[in-house]
Amino acid sequence: MTGPRYTKLVQSLPASVPFVGPEQQERARGAEFAARLGANENIFGPSPKAIAAMQAETVNIWKYGDPTSHDLKQALAAQMGISTENIVVGEGIDGLLGYLARLLIGPGDAVVTSDGAYPTFNYHVAGFGGEIHKVPYLLDHEDPAALLTKAKEVGAKLIYIANPDNPMGTWHKGSIVSAMLDQLPPGCLLLLDEAYVEFAPKGTAAEVDVNDPRLIRMRTFSKAYGMAGARVGYAVGAPDLILSFDKIRNHFGMNRASQAGALEALSDLKWLNKTLEEVSQSRDRIAAIAVENGLTPLPSATNFVAVDCGEDGDFARFVLAVLVARGLFVRMPFVAPQDRCIRISCSRPQDLDILAQSLPEALAEARRN
Amino acid sequence: MTGPRYTKLVQSLPASVPFVGPEQQERARGAEFAARLGANENIFGPSPKAIAAMQAETVNIWKYGDPTSHDLKQALAAQMGISTENIVVGEGIDGLLGYLARLLIGPGDAVVTSDGAYPTFNYHVAGFGGEIHKVPYLLDHEDPAALLTKAKEVGAKLIYIANPDNPMGTWHKGSIVSAMLDQLPPGCLLLLDEAYVEFAPKGTAAEVDVNDPRLIRMRTFSKAYGMAGARVGYAVGAPDLILSFDKIRNHFGMNRASQAGALEALSDLKWLNKTLEEVSQSRDRIAAIAVENGLTPLPSATNFVAVDCGEDGDFARFVLAVLVARGLFVRMPFVAPQDRCIRISCSRPQDLDILAQSLPEALAEARRN
Repeated sequence: MTGPRYTKLVQSLPASVPFVGPEQQERARGAEFAARLGANENIFGPSPKAIAAMQAETVNIWKYGDPTSHDLKQALAAQMGISTENIVVGEGIDGLLGYLARLLIGPGDAVVTSDGAYPTFNYHVAGFGGEIHKVPYLLDHEDPAALLTKAKEVGAKLIYIANPDNPMGTWHKGSIVSAMLDQLPPGCLLLLDEAYVEFAPKGTAAEVDVNDPRLIRMRTFSKAYGMAGARVGYAVGAPDLILSFDKIRNHFGMNRASQAGALEALSDLKWLNKTLEEVSQSRDRIAAIAVENGLTPLPSATNFVAVDCGEDGDFARFVLAVLVARGLFVRMPFVAPQDRCIRISCSRPQDLDILAQSLPEALAEARRN
Repeated sequence: MTGPRYTKLVQSLPASVPFVGPEQQERARGAEFAARLGANENIFGPSPKAIAAMQAETVNIWKYGDPTSHDLKQALAAQMGISTENIVVGEGIDGLLGYLARLLIGPGDAVVTSDGAYPTFNYHVAGFGGEIHKVPYLLDHEDPAALLTKAKEVGAKLIYIANPDNPMGTWHKGSIVSAMLDQLPPGCLLLLDEAYVEFAPKGTAAEVDVNDPRLIRMRTFSKAYGMAGARVGYAVGAPDLILSFDKIRNHFGMNRASQAGALEALSDLKWLNKTLEEVSQSRDRIAAIAVENGLTPLPSATNFVAVDCGEDGDFARFVLAVLVARGLFVRMPFVAPQDRCIRISCSRPQDLDILAQSLPEALAEARRN
């Protein structure tokens, strides 16, 4: 009995997982985490109106979702002052990254990103055979000039930049990102991941002609809108590029209740502002806890704070391991020298109390090690 | 300003949509449908326990879903008496079909299906450059012998068979399907789509060694479990094949509330049996309405009935168009001679009353035409 014949590309891929989920870690350790600070989820949650809309729509869950996400696209278009032809809704930014990689990337095609930036993007690019070229962070920021230089050098089809950045939380003015377009090699698409942009200071979102064919931006309801488990993201770009998603996407892939929830979440600006305030306070608290422990919090325009543990990656990994063992779900950058930091997601005061209690002990243990 | 450089394959693809959703049709006609009988959705809905679980989990929607769908896989494995290593959970069968096509199919790879069978499968195969070879239905049934002969002839990597079939509702004994394995060309995978199998007579599900590397079967919570809008499907096969999905799938693609809902739906056998009874009664009613109108209902092992309108495809399309204009969302087979039928999804008595009222008028109009 012979098994199936995989493509050559698939044969060459590892069975990899960009991230291990906290539930799997909980099962491995035999206990739930006391605080969930590792995946930049937003514990302040969606607008109560969004929750109510999802719960109400659950009664209609026997129906497929609208494959065009018409109502949500209309609302997004109205809010952004653009056309629905500039928007495609998908199964979170992760899903949209996969589609975009599929549209552009074949075996050997060059892609440029930062070394240590979002691994799920790399996963999707590698999954279509793309060759990933990485440039280092510059002072814990993604480095637009280096990304552009590398893109020219390798003839990249695609540059990935997140603004604000994950996992460092740093950011550039939007004008820095929009200025990248002037330097972009012909036929190279700039992918701007704005998953965290709602948390950032005004002026962080790049102001670019939405019909510029050289840029695609992605946003999500997973972060500021508190709906990570609902899987709703969207990409904004020129109509031709947006329409091309219809060639390959899973048209009936959207959850019907999630569509209804996102629509309500989008309209509840009051809740969004409340969330942003809570996240801001939480950022300050995480920074204060870091400082109390002699560590350096990095400035953040996101719902997490990268905390510089002041030594090397091994030290930070040890600190992280102790925190995890003490029941805190936390993650950290993968690549040096950013891996001197641990990354703490914003959360409620009671969750950060646990951090405040555990961090000194984790540091002490790491220093004894 | 140059746009992005798409892959050659993507350039060759049309921006196609396997199905236009009913919401889009409603917007086009400026009114909601009075009855939704076109997408084989299950209006009897999920178990109230599943609805309650989804609504409760909505409060936790700020968390990503478990990327391993651990609890749901455990429950499925226990119910089927297999290992969790034999199961991958995905975003509906549509999502899983896309992943499977990606695992196996590259440009020019041969795939065999029935002419008029599930178009979304063809969409995904074409989307990876596969060459689709079609064999005709035999007496409104998918034709296992013809599928096998064609697969040998073209060196197919993949054969698609749905049992029961969509759009005709016909079925084979499971033993017919399992016997196909003996004739399967080496290196050809048999894809058994069992989306509707819960509605079918005992003995329709093929009894096959779950570790046989020549077969993958797909099932869903969209049909008998009434959760189409929740997007939960699963594939069952040999561990190597199942593991290969981890190379490419969107690991964090599952909706968290949907995972919780599917788990509850699976355990509520009483509700499932109630649904099967309601569907059975609805099938009988649709058949009776057909007979009252001098038409021939095909025997069905699904939650829909293909009704032979007794003339050619143009006639059936006219009947369909009148029904749609009168507010019934209905679809029909795309390919002759099966397109002499219209396909009516099972629904509540009050929905079928509308069908009973509209069908004679639609037939009369079509005959006048």
